[in-house]
Formats: sequence, C-alpha cells, structure tokens
Amino acid sequence: MNLLIAHGGGPTAVINASLAGVVRRARQEKEIGRVLAARHGIEGVLKEDLIDLTGLNEAELEKLSATPGSAIGSCRYKMRAEDHETAVRVLDRNNIGIFLYNGGNDSMDTCVQVAALTDRTRVIGIPKTIDNDLVRTDHCPGFGSAARYYAITALELCLDVAALNIHVVILEVMGRNAGWTATATGLAQRIGSIGPEIILLPEKPFEEEAFLDRVRDLWTRQRGFVVAVSEGLAGMDGNPLVSAVDRSGADAFGHALPGNVSHYLAQLITSRLGYRARSEKPGLVGRVSAACVSPIDRKEAYGVGVYAVSSALHGASGSMVSIRRISSLPYASEFELVPLSEVANLERKMPDEYYNAESGKPTSGFVDYCMPLIGGDLPDYLILDR
Amino acid sequence: MNLLIAHGGGPTAVINASLAGVVRRARQEKEIGRVLAARHGIEGVLKEDLIDLTGLNEAELEKLSATPGSAIGSCRYKMRAEDHETAVRVLDRNNIGIFLYNGGNDSMDTCVQVAALTDRTRVIGIPKTIDNDLVRTDHCPGFGSAARYYAITALELCLDVAALNIHVVILEVMGRNAGWTATATGLAQRIGSIGPEIILLPEKPFEEEAFLDRVRDLWTRQRGFVVAVSEGLAGMDGNPLVSAVDRSGADAFGHALPGNVSHYLAQLITSRLGYRARSEKPGLVGRVSAACVSPIDRKEAYGVGVYAVSSALHGASGSMVSIRRISSLPYASEFELVPLSEVANLERKMPDEYYNAESGKPTSGFVDYCMPLIGGDLPDYLILDR
Repeated sequence: MNLLIAHGGGPTAVINASLAGVVRRARQEKEIGRVLAARHGIEGVLKEDLIDLTGLNEAELEKLSATPGSAIGSCRYKMRAEDHETAVRVLDRNNIGIFLYNGGNDSMDTCVQVAALTDRTRVIGIPKTIDNDLVRTDHCPGFGSAARYYAITALELCLDVAALNIHVVILEVMGRNAGWTATATGLAQRIGSIGPEIILLPEKPFEEEAFLDRVRDLWTRQRGFVVAVSEGLAGMDGNPLVSAVDRSGADAFGHALPGNVSHYLAQLITSRLGYRARSEKPGLVGRVSAACVSPIDRKEAYGVGVYAVSSALHGASGSMVSIRRISSLPYASEFELVPLSEVANLERKMPDEYYNAESGKPTSGFVDYCMPLIGGDLPDYLILDR
Repeated sequence: MNLLIAHGGGPTAVINASLAGVVRRARQEKEIGRVLAARHGIEGVLKEDLIDLTGLNEAELEKLSATPGSAIGSCRYKMRAEDHETAVRVLDRNNIGIFLYNGGNDSMDTCVQVAALTDRTRVIGIPKTIDNDLVRTDHCPGFGSAARYYAITALELCLDVAALNIHVVILEVMGRNAGWTATATGLAQRIGSIGPEIILLPEKPFEEEAFLDRVRDLWTRQRGFVVAVSEGLAGMDGNPLVSAVDRSGADAFGHALPGNVSHYLAQLITSRLGYRARSEKPGLVGRVSAACVSPIDRKEAYGVGVYAVSSALHGASGSMVSIRRISSLPYASEFELVPLSEVANLERKMPDEYYNAESGKPTSGFVDYCMPLIGGDLPDYLILDR
C-alpha cells in the first residue's frame, strides 16, 4: 500500500517539519510502498495531481524541515458530497492505505468526510494552525512560532517607538476569531520587558469611545506607544470591524476575509484625535517567518507527523493527533489520538482567564501556558533607564 | 573633556552597535572623561537631557550591540538658527570636546550646523540609514540588515503564496525616496530561488494601466504572486501615490509621510480586475528586526562608531565617517572621512543600472553590490518541483 498526504488551509513556518516527519517515518516501514503528496490539498487529490516524495534524500528532508510555507501547496477548498466518488476512485487507483491531512478545523472536516468514504484507507488528521483554535489539543503546531514572531515583533516595535515616540503604532496580528496570537504580543512585557499598551482581541467587542479615551490618556502621558489588534476585531454587533479588501467578502467556508483593521484604527486616531498614527501589518509574514521559529514548535510539528504515520500503521483511523501537556516547567508533552468528529468545524476561543480585561494584557496564566511553546525565552535587550 | 553622542532619524537594527563601538573606544582613552548621550537626539542636547554611559559594563555593551532600535532615543527635529546659542551653552557647560551625531542626510545637516558653532568641540557624523541614500559612502550601516530583512521576507512570502495561490500579495517596503531596499526584495530570485514578480521603485513613476496589464497577465498564467512596492511610490506627476494617514502630511524636514500604498494597490487590483488581493506592510518592523541582522552590517556599524571616536581624537572635525568598498568577493571595506558639507541634505538615488526596467527586477550588478552587505547568503529553502 501507499501513503498519501495533503495540506489544507494557511501554511505555517513549521508545517513542512510535519511533512518531513511523515516521510521519514513512512520510509522506515516495509509495509508502505510509496510516499505520495497531493499538490494543493484536497483539490490535488481530486485532480489526482500527486507528487512522489519517496526519493527525498536526508539532506533534502533536513532542508524541508527548515523551509516555511507548504512545500506541497495547500488549498481552501471545501469538499462536497459530489466530490466523494472521485476521491474514492483516486485513493483506490493509487492504492492509498493511509491518508493524512494536515490542517485546522476546516481541514478536519475534509478528514471526516474522507474517513467516512472507505474502509480501505486509514485516515488521520495532523493538527496545524497559527490561530491555535483547534479543540481537544493543548495547542496546535504552528502557534508557538507565530506567538514567538508576534511577541518579538511587538517588543521590537516598542523599542522603535520608545526611541522615536512621535506616533501611535497599530500592529495588526493574524488570527481570525481567536485571540491567542494577539495576546502573545504582550509576553515580553509580562516577563519584565516592554510591550503594547493596548491589546484588542477578536473575542472582545471593540468599544470605540473607550478605546479613544484610553489612547488620549496614554498619548497625554507618554506620547508614542503600540496597540496590538487582531485582524478579526469585531464591533459591538459582533461583525468584523472592517470589510474585506477582496470584493467577494468571504472564502469558501463562509469566513469573512479580514481587511485592514490596523489602517482603519490608525485613521480613526488621526481623524478623531489628531495624533500621528501609523499601521504595521506584517500579515502573512507572521506565519512564514523562519527566523522566529520556536524550537519546541518545530520539534512537535515533526513529532505529530511521525505519530500520525505510526498510529495509522497500528490500525488507527478517523482520529486527529493531539498534543497533551504533561508539565510546563520543565516543559513536557506527549501525543495521543482524539476522534476527528470531536474536532472538525469547532473553534476554541481563548479562555477569559488568559486576558486581563482591566489592563488589556495577558495574565500570568497565559504566560505559563505560552512561554514554553515559544521556546521558553525572548531576546534579552538592553533597555536603558529613560 | 567629555564626549557627547546623539542619534537622529529612524532607528535601525544596528545603530546601537555603533553606540557600543563609541562607548568602548572612548573608554580606552584617558583624554576622554565621561561618555555622555543626549536623549532623543539634538532635542536632548538642547534640553540638556543627558545620560552618562561611562559606567556601562562589558555585558551591557554586548547586549547593547544586539539590541535593535535606539537605546538613547532619537528625534526628527530640524535644528534652527535660534537653537545655536543654547547648543553652544550646553556643549560648553558639559565640557564636550567631541560631539558625535549618528543619522542620515537630515542628521548630517544638524552636524554641519553644530560644527560651525564652535572650535572647542570636534564634530563627527556617523552614517546610518536603512534607506541607503547618503552620498559619498559605498553604503550606510543599517541598510544591509534592512535589505536582508526584505530579501528574506519577500522570499518567504513567495513560498506562502506559491503554497496557497489564491491572491495577489502586495509587500510594502520602507525607504522614502530611494529604491535600494525595495530592489533587495528580488535578491533571492536573482540567486536562483523565488521572488516578487513585480518591484515598484520610488524612482520609477507608477504607470497604472501598464501595472494592471502586467497583473492581469501574471494572474492569467499563474494566479497568486507577490508585488513589492516602495512606500514612497510616486505617480506620473512625481508626487507620492498616497497621502499620509497623518493629517499634518509632512514631517519637520518637509518630507511627505507615506501612507499605505500597499493597501491602495490591493484595492486597485480588487476593484479594477476583481482578483483577490491583500497587502502586507511590515512597516517599522523592517528596520528593527534583530533576527534578520546582517553580521557584516553589525560589524561595520560597530566599526564606524569606533572610527568616529578615533578620528576625533586625531583632531578631525566637520567630517562624516564613510565606508569604502575594497572588494566584493571576498568582501572587504575600510573607513575614511568625507566632508559633512558634501553629504548633508543630499539624497543618493539608486543607479539605473541596478534595476532592469524591462523585467522589473534587480540586475546582476545589484546582486554583486548588495549580497555581501546582507551577509553573503540567504536561507537555502527546499523548493519542490511543482
């Protein structure tokens, strides 16, 4: 039998590490003939656009582990009932005994559908999302690196603004509906360095007047400072504050496409308060920056790939690999399986106890949760007494 | 006598390395009593807001070298004739025998003014700007790291878009009037990897219809791709394409403040062609990202600080430290002095021969010039044959 893997949803800085784990583990097994990958996710499966990774050498696998983005492509296609026949035909024709799909909650929906189609193929989901919003897992591969990226980026922006404090700087953070990545911008401050004065989460409706009051107060006291805002920030009506740049307004899963909320807030501050304001929106850079990869995240991403293959070889199917935290200090985790049906299409918001609504900053509970995932440290910069 | 240093203009990822070089070199010299820094540039001088760095220990100097932003602050204040008396009084009262000002072409204007005020203080300019637009030097400390940041960021964004090729991605690049940093986004592609399909420079007036034709053609052939654009992109009338978010519209030196040209172009593509488009604007992140610092850049930034002190001790004044390239392969450079009056307020645009107007990409001349400055290499990612 052969193994087939595909990637769904947004790439991350470490999804290729999972792929490297899959390839390396699968090749150790005589039972598995070829290691195939579908180009661009389930769309590649349906088009039978497959690529053979069996022959990757060790040097290439090492390089793959360190390459951000998805080396085999990805997609945002939502599988439909009329695709099922094609899918089964492709799986059978290529003698796919193991099908692995790496992605977030939408991709796990694809997994559930494929698992229901045939008994001849074992189906395992591999978790991945910088949003960290999959249920039934302590955290998701990809999140630790994105959180590290945003924690460092926020810290460095604060250094820049402290040096030349002539503007309010709005930092836009990826993460559609859950505030995990936005809250990570406050990590440096929580461990004794500096950070954003305000963090706006998608879970907390935006109160415009209260926000402007706080900006006015901060500007009066210190002038320049940083505001971190989730791209999915919603108004009091629960709808995202900005509409999409894209005119279609929503992707195939019905999610609104975030526009440019940082630009919106900078303009709001400038027009209402007259202060100089600017927006910084690293956007996709936040999910593909290899320089900020968390070593723990890369290791676990590799591990979930290995574990997915091992589980399928032991007969498992219809499950997703999950990460269980054993301890935070020292950090230790193990992998286990959870039913795909309990994961697909569900979103895990960030718990209230990780965010102090009063101060608008992470709590010590969040620091304990998140610091190990970003690698346990942040750059130790010299901050002179100003 | 004492030494006084101050920073002007935008911080960089390595300006503190120059500061560390100054402090370490100055402390070796019995002739120099205290090493003072003015908080927030010439404004700090005029307010006599000084901080004593003489006591920084070796560990702190090491940390300072690796800290992005400006540890002593900076400003965009343009010195005026009515400030001269105050400046002389502060220099005299603090027995400043050596005054060093680290900055770009505006800061060198401040240097020229201070140098003309008194014979009792030797004045040396230390070059710094990510824009790389100072004349009379091969390049400017700060540029190598910013160029490395944009080269890597563009490469990684291209990996992301190749994986999930559902949109045109506009990457906005800092650099007010000169295209050095924007052109650096094409470095990876020039050395055999992937890169932006279009690079828009501030030196080349934006031709809207030609741009849209090119976008349409690329989308038809390959769908998703990356466009890099300088924040200072100008229209056919020579004026910046977008006005500032900031209402005042210009800073104290009369430069227009760039707005959000990437957002503008994404909206243009969406509204005119109906394609999905999004903007990524790392903004200030591009000049303070320590993870992408070029080792050569940091070393030279440290070196110009040391050289400034040595030159002043040898009696020089009214000069800026300049970097002269001795060879590109292997890379070697040396420092020398150039008259401040030949540097102040002048801008060095990027030469035409570094940019291929036909392909919209860097030439091999640019690669030879720029690669050593970013450290000689770029990440070697695995790109599967797609």
